[in-house]
Amino acid sequence: MKLKTALLSLVISLATNAAMAYEWQALPDKAPEPADNPVTAEKVELGKRLYFDPRFSETGTVSCNSCHNLMLGGDDNRSFSMGVHGKTGGRSAPTVWNAAFASSQFWDGRAATLEDQAKGPVVNPVEMGMSDLEVAMNRVRAIPGYEALFVSAFGKDDAMTVENAARAVAAFERTLITPNSRYDGHVNGNKDALSEQELRGMTLFDETGCTGCHSGPAFNGPAMAAGTGFFMKFPTYTDNDYVATYDLASDKGRDGKHMWKVPTLRNIALTAPYFHNGSVQTLDDAVRVMAKVQLNKDLDENQVKDIVAFLGALTGEFPVMDLPRLPATAGWSIIDSK
Amino acid sequence: MKLKTALLSLVISLATNAAMAYEWQALPDKAPEPADNPVTAEKVELGKRLYFDPRFSETGTVSCNSCHNLMLGGDDNRSFSMGVHGKTGGRSAPTVWNAAFASSQFWDGRAATLEDQAKGPVVNPVEMGMSDLEVAMNRVRAIPGYEALFVSAFGKDDAMTVENAARAVAAFERTLITPNSRYDGHVNGNKDALSEQELRGMTLFDETGCTGCHSGPAFNGPAMAAGTGFFMKFPTYTDNDYVATYDLASDKGRDGKHMWKVPTLRNIALTAPYFHNGSVQTLDDAVRVMAKVQLNKDLDENQVKDIVAFLGALTGEFPVMDLPRLPATAGWSIIDSK
Repeated sequence: MKLKTALLSLVISLATNAAMAYEWQALPDKAPEPADNPVTAEKVELGKRLYFDPRFSETGTVSCNSCHNLMLGGDDNRSFSMGVHGKTGGRSAPTVWNAAFASSQFWDGRAATLEDQAKGPVVNPVEMGMSDLEVAMNRVRAIPGYEALFVSAFGKDDAMTVENAARAVAAFERTLITPNSRYDGHVNGNKDALSEQELRGMTLFDETGCTGCHSGPAFNGPAMAAGTGFFMKFPTYTDNDYVATYDLASDKGRDGKHMWKVPTLRNIALTAPYFHNGSVQTLDDAVRVMAKVQLNKDLDENQVKDIVAFLGALTGEFPVMDLPRLPATAGWSIIDSK
Repeated sequence: MKLKTALLSLVISLATNAAMAYEWQALPDKAPEPADNPVTAEKVELGKRLYFDPRFSETGTVSCNSCHNLMLGGDDNRSFSMGVHGKTGGRSAPTVWNAAFASSQFWDGRAATLEDQAKGPVVNPVEMGMSDLEVAMNRVRAIPGYEALFVSAFGKDDAMTVENAARAVAAFERTLITPNSRYDGHVNGNKDALSEQELRGMTLFDETGCTGCHSGPAFNGPAMAAGTGFFMKFPTYTDNDYVATYDLASDKGRDGKHMWKVPTLRNIALTAPYFHNGSVQTLDDAVRVMAKVQLNKDLDENQVKDIVAFLGALTGEFPVMDLPRLPATAGWSIIDSK
């Protein structure tokens, strides 16, 4: 009897601990990197220039940074990004900050790696608008000064390829991480890092069930092999007004099954408007909508405020970087804008 | 008789010296600044952020840097810049590098100062597309984080004004100068700074008559009071094919009299295509055209190459600067892009 009681007590204790013991994780200082494309200083230097260079877009006006602005939250604060000739697409630009911690890229996870992702917008007619990756690469090849950077990063033989350009951009993006948020300070033992409200929000974020999907150091799901992806159905609960109000279901996502990548919540305060279609203007509303359409919960105003306060503590430290100088074309322009 | 000969000899010597003695000048390390807007570190920090901030354009996609790209030659290498919604105007973006040395701004000199110039593109419907400067300023005012920068730069009373924003951008632009070109090295006594060809080109540049207008340290004319401007008729000689080929006369410039500001030639190798309408694709052709339509001279191929080589030596040293972090809006977006 005594043993039974003791055992029961142990089981209850374990269960309670298990429920309590959501493992909050700080963001690592380094992002994972694939074995076939280790990050080197030379690749980062090249990739950074390519990232900021608008000259291999059709109009010469759109770079990676145009929609994934590193001076801001790594996006453009628009519902839909604006590419060449003022064209817009149908999904909101995800942040590039900490994208290196995602196990797939794009809202529907259709790119397994940053290397694959980097090539997409270049030939998207409403983004950079080039007809073909080789045509874009020919622009890069024609700019003196890029060759030395490619050779330095990839060696002499056939360095100036689309694949190497993508590798360099991916290597640069693996440096775009934002550690040392106040949340990270808290996880690392700084008891003053978070306010009372933020601590309440943190507990509520877990208890409400947000951590069921937004787990791990980047709040984008569990660690998975690159390319596996971590997808969830969105919206899950459709018996509410939000689905129509914010048009959450007409874009059917991955494989037409309303499956979407669970995006990072790092720096989420900086990346309004929200969701794949940028339809929700504020983080308050985004929290309210997520609780309802994913967890079928109605949060009260204080709960929303507390969770939003916690999410604000996920804004990290942004690396200081020099404005790059882009290799020049002397006496002529690579852009045919006549 | 002896005296007469001596005098004649003196006169000839003076005349020869006068002809020989074109005064080549190095670029100063500092740009002139107006008494009512001295450059301060605080204004520069604020102005730099405003310069790179796309959020007070209509679409949230166009900043000063979009068309006057500091990662490149201070322009966009396009004939006509592309503003909001992919709209284009009718004149080519002049470089912002060393604009602080110009005594008027815009191709037609319609702005007397950098302060005046800074306001123009914000409300140009094909550039940043805002309806009104106050509407643009309201965007800036609504972004928390800007207020402290304005107060720091301009003091507490009514700091966040359009005029102060323009002053800050102008102060930042006064730091955008590119000294220490190889030409400057030569002028400062470094005998190895220029190649044989560049030295030939330098002499030829003067002898052909280019220095008649492109004089002074920035090759944009004599020092003049701010707002006075230094204008020349372009094209002067119209009895040639170039005027039609490059459509040089249909835009009538300042006051409809074909008067144009003499632009700087600093970093000219980086700012193709050329002229107010960006119609001339290469620097070789630009030199050829200028000699003909302004000086009625036909340069041979070697002369063109030599002058172009000299102009390449006017590319200066670009200041290293950090990529700025722009003040954030936490949990919402200032851009209404729905």
